[in-house]
Amino acid sequence: MLALLQHCGRSFLTPSTVRSLNKSFYSSQMAKRVAVVLAGCGVYDGSEIHEASAVLVHLSRGGASVKMFAPDIDQMHVVNHLKGEPSQEKRNVLVESARLARGDIQELSKLSAKDHDAVIFPGGFGAAKNLCTWAVQGKDCAVNEEVKAALQAFHREGKPIGLCCISPVLAAKVFPGCEVTVGMEKDDKYPDTSDTAAAINQLGCKHVSAGVTQSHVDEKNKLVTTCAFMCNAPIHEIFDGIGSMVQGVLKLA
Amino acid sequence: MLALLQHCGRSFLTPSTVRSLNKSFYSSQMAKRVAVVLAGCGVYDGSEIHEASAVLVHLSRGGASVKMFAPDIDQMHVVNHLKGEPSQEKRNVLVESARLARGDIQELSKLSAKDHDAVIFPGGFGAAKNLCTWAVQGKDCAVNEEVKAALQAFHREGKPIGLCCISPVLAAKVFPGCEVTVGMEKDDKYPDTSDTAAAINQLGCKHVSAGVTQSHVDEKNKLVTTCAFMCNAPIHEIFDGIGSMVQGVLKLA
Repeated sequence: MLALLQHCGRSFLTPSTVRSLNKSFYSSQMAKRVAVVLAGCGVYDGSEIHEASAVLVHLSRGGASVKMFAPDIDQMHVVNHLKGEPSQEKRNVLVESARLARGDIQELSKLSAKDHDAVIFPGGFGAAKNLCTWAVQGKDCAVNEEVKAALQAFHREGKPIGLCCISPVLAAKVFPGCEVTVGMEKDDKYPDTSDTAAAINQLGCKHVSAGVTQSHVDEKNKLVTTCAFMCNAPIHEIFDGIGSMVQGVLKLA
Repeated sequence: MLALLQHCGRSFLTPSTVRSLNKSFYSSQMAKRVAVVLAGCGVYDGSEIHEASAVLVHLSRGGASVKMFAPDIDQMHVVNHLKGEPSQEKRNVLVESARLARGDIQELSKLSAKDHDAVIFPGGFGAAKNLCTWAVQGKDCAVNEEVKAALQAFHREGKPIGLCCISPVLAAKVFPGCEVTVGMEKDDKYPDTSDTAAAINQLGCKHVSAGVTQSHVDEKNKLVTTCAFMCNAPIHEIFDGIGSMVQGVLKLA
């Protein structure tokens, strides 16, 4: 079958070409080295695609050098995104995340905080199903051990951590007392923010209301968060909010 | 299993919430109505994710109302993006495209040019495998009948068509004599452009060299094209080139 790929009359984009190209897409001299941790590929069972893509565009514009990581585990669910229902399929978080990374991704176990200046976690159900179990257990969730180790390592080294959408609950679970935002409380445009904020506060953290184009910085813990698709907003406003988060991370890195 | 999704302590983003939110993400009053045709989800076997996402961000910023479509057919390949190799799995183009559309997508057979002001085709291998067979047959490829019908309908109505990356070959195949770009010829940053351009010229069309942040407008045929990931460029430059294409489409719509 691979022969078919390569026997492309004008082999405009073979997998190997794509991988070699990616090396230069995401690197530049003297760049901030940023790790991006993915959780699959698709809002209902993986990383929210447009959040992950926005993170990469803003990191690239900010001159960062990017490496992507994901845990080598089965997804909690495979959701048929057309029907909005789980299917019986099995898919692997690392393999599906590779779609977002155009093949250039590593196992999360290989992520070393010493080799990076910052780490960013896009949102989507995957963050709440595959990186932790918030989607089914709320504040009583368990955090994947590799995810927890990565968060703790960057925190210990005083390196910034960026999170968006539902991912800030990872920080709330791992860093008691931290400040994060998942949107504006008591605002119809943010239908699930108030309940999520209450759970974050119950964990002993502080939820800070912030609009979709804004990000919140917890200076002490070097956490930068934005609500992204927790808000019912046009996608370009979500893109801009993620830009604010990424710029905040690069500033602290 | 769906109960698990809904039994999310703070059910921050259920599929139904996501679908209802999408209605307002992509619509506004008096907006240009733009159809986006997807081909799966992932560069090696579907739509190039970052190209599709960039199209949606730029359309949103331009105030367009967007509806997404994809053919309800099996993908030519399912590629394991981590290994860069086809697997034995079967996946459906419409179901996988729904990941990019956050569930809000329709069968391509339902796309009516009369209900839209323009149509845009992101690139990626899916455009050359699932929408036509260019990846394996080059200029002798067959174009999917629904794709061909959609292209011809928009063209007949004098409505603009935007294409990026390898998708411009769809126009070259369907509209003899048209002008498109797939990048800069004889430039190492565009490793596959020269061969693709030669094939386009052999089809009786005219390839026009254009850089990654630029787009080319064929005024006569109302085609707007940009090379996107045909160029070895930082991802934000690809994003900007797609912005130029989208703005060109909206201007003509």
